[in-house]
Amino acid sequence: MTAITYELIKKDEATGARAGILHTPHGSFPTPIFMPVGTQASVKGVSPDELKELGAGVILSNTYHLFLRPGMDLVREAGGLHRFMNWDGAILTDSGGFQVFSLGDLRKITEDGVTFRSHIDGSKKFLSPEVSMEVQMALGSDIVMAFDECVPYPADYEYAKTSTERTTRWAKRCKDAMTSESQGLFGIVQGGMYKDLREKSVADLVELDFPGYAVGGLSVGEPKELMYEMLGLTVHLLPEDKPRYLMGVGTPDYLLEGVMYGIDMFDCVFPTRVARNGMAMTHEGRLVMKNAAYTRDFSVLEEGCGCYACRNGYTRAYIRHLVRAEEIFGLRLLTLHNLYFLQAFMREMREAILADAFSDFRAKFLARYQK
Amino acid sequence: MTAITYELIKKDEATGARAGILHTPHGSFPTPIFMPVGTQASVKGVSPDELKELGAGVILSNTYHLFLRPGMDLVREAGGLHRFMNWDGAILTDSGGFQVFSLGDLRKITEDGVTFRSHIDGSKKFLSPEVSMEVQMALGSDIVMAFDECVPYPADYEYAKTSTERTTRWAKRCKDAMTSESQGLFGIVQGGMYKDLREKSVADLVELDFPGYAVGGLSVGEPKELMYEMLGLTVHLLPEDKPRYLMGVGTPDYLLEGVMYGIDMFDCVFPTRVARNGMAMTHEGRLVMKNAAYTRDFSVLEEGCGCYACRNGYTRAYIRHLVRAEEIFGLRLLTLHNLYFLQAFMREMREAILADAFSDFRAKFLARYQK
Repeated sequence: MTAITYELIKKDEATGARAGILHTPHGSFPTPIFMPVGTQASVKGVSPDELKELGAGVILSNTYHLFLRPGMDLVREAGGLHRFMNWDGAILTDSGGFQVFSLGDLRKITEDGVTFRSHIDGSKKFLSPEVSMEVQMALGSDIVMAFDECVPYPADYEYAKTSTERTTRWAKRCKDAMTSESQGLFGIVQGGMYKDLREKSVADLVELDFPGYAVGGLSVGEPKELMYEMLGLTVHLLPEDKPRYLMGVGTPDYLLEGVMYGIDMFDCVFPTRVARNGMAMTHEGRLVMKNAAYTRDFSVLEEGCGCYACRNGYTRAYIRHLVRAEEIFGLRLLTLHNLYFLQAFMREMREAILADAFSDFRAKFLARYQK
Repeated sequence: MTAITYELIKKDEATGARAGILHTPHGSFPTPIFMPVGTQASVKGVSPDELKELGAGVILSNTYHLFLRPGMDLVREAGGLHRFMNWDGAILTDSGGFQVFSLGDLRKITEDGVTFRSHIDGSKKFLSPEVSMEVQMALGSDIVMAFDECVPYPADYEYAKTSTERTTRWAKRCKDAMTSESQGLFGIVQGGMYKDLREKSVADLVELDFPGYAVGGLSVGEPKELMYEMLGLTVHLLPEDKPRYLMGVGTPDYLLEGVMYGIDMFDCVFPTRVARNGMAMTHEGRLVMKNAAYTRDFSVLEEGCGCYACRNGYTRAYIRHLVRAEEIFGLRLLTLHNLYFLQAFMREMREAILADAFSDFRAKFLARYQK
């Protein structure tokens, strides 16, 4: 019995889009699902109650950040991340691999793991498959990610091959080190932009039989067409009875394409980050709230939206005022709106899949949405 | 019939402390009352729902700030400040006088009013009794404050006399200009630290018969003893059947003394400002959440506290982590706690007055409270 299982409810034969249920120790959640990001044990600006109220079931938190601060011992003493941050839904933690490469200084990769300097205080730290598993067991997340190296773009074939093979060896070490039965470990497919390396990565990981798989190394600067080509061929090879997770994707157009290719899970800081920059997400596109056009606009962010801000009648004019005056409540209203918008958008896609109407939904959405 | 009335329920004869009810067009509220400050049409970080939930009934908003941004026309178009910010409790707006002198640049005072430069964009602006009333009518606040000059400390006798006499003439002009019957205009006592000027200020304002009076020009840098001396003699002269408001006071020790002297209403940015700096208010004194002492402290901010943070079990260790990591949710939890703390503290004082036990309550509180 594994901690994480996936139940396929319906597959759209025309596209490959899937509706399912993700079962975790902290609840079962309809897929496709978007997971808000709570990097430092908090989804910026919102409470766990508010997350639940807007429909979020699974959140993501970052091993790298929590490893550095407050540290795994403190979170373990607190009774794990759920209790520490007061969230009784499910939590997915990444492995720290991505941040070590994007945030850590002076990193040095060996077969053993990665030595780097903390971006907070410059102290020397070490992360490896075993350390990452130890930290993620202390955090007690429902879904644990294998420690990998995200192959950068562009990367030459030899680099991508060496890196991907090491990521696979690291995945095996993660599996051996993960001794908690209440947590599910996902493998991460790498391979850069090379078809044969992607195929080999999938084959090796599937051999290890993880309860779920992430498609890594995409949306790292490559052309959109190349991303979709790699996504398509990777997903095609993954087992149907396991959940598939595309990391770091959170704009409506990319989510739509990801779902079309058969992805079940997504996360991204996009909706919360742009909210803090005064941007609202809608079915028609993005609203830059500072724009003078909203000065006397007494309508809500999006008509018919059920989010806290729209439901309670907060107007564009008021939110514009708050954003210009740098009032925290403005970014809170936008954060609640954007997170709700994405939850609603995922529900709409799921309903379209269940109704055998995903292609139609996609065409209509894209016709209306202004990027 | 005036928009604002005060009902005296009980007076503590030993001290002069009063329990009463403040009746406004947006509800009736037990006094003594602490009013959270929403300078720019938002109490920093919290929603109107949360304010109501933590027991706040009246909030303060700043005419100076709203006059400059978003401007009175926009708020009027929005249907007034209550509708603009979605708050159906009562609102008190100050007159803009204090901010013109503390924030505006290049101010020039004449009998007519004050010319100054906006601290936002440097543009030239003019506020006067008539303009302040026009703005406050556009805002539609329940309680409107007369346009005054806060006599600085120290000020020589001649300056204080000239300024106070002008403030009285301005109060008369405010009364003439305030034509809204759903708003109550309070006079503001000035007089600096001069007994005879204070007495004259009170006498002249009482002659104008306002529905409430503020004690202005205190807590401006003078020694504590001098402040209490001026407060005592001023309050003593004010009519018993009108509410009394001490502006800009929000620490427990000052609130306790203010109530003892017979003040009914208070406002201050203190609880919200220190929350943003990582400080929690408790009956034992202030907690600086960054202190290492709280690293592994899994107790709540204050045992028995009914605020959102304490009621839901958010620990000092978690809040310390959020403050150190500069997470917005940390300052939100502290803001909700501090505002709740002050609402609870005012209730406790009121109950002590009603139980003829205010002196005892005060002595016990001061013995426990570490400044």
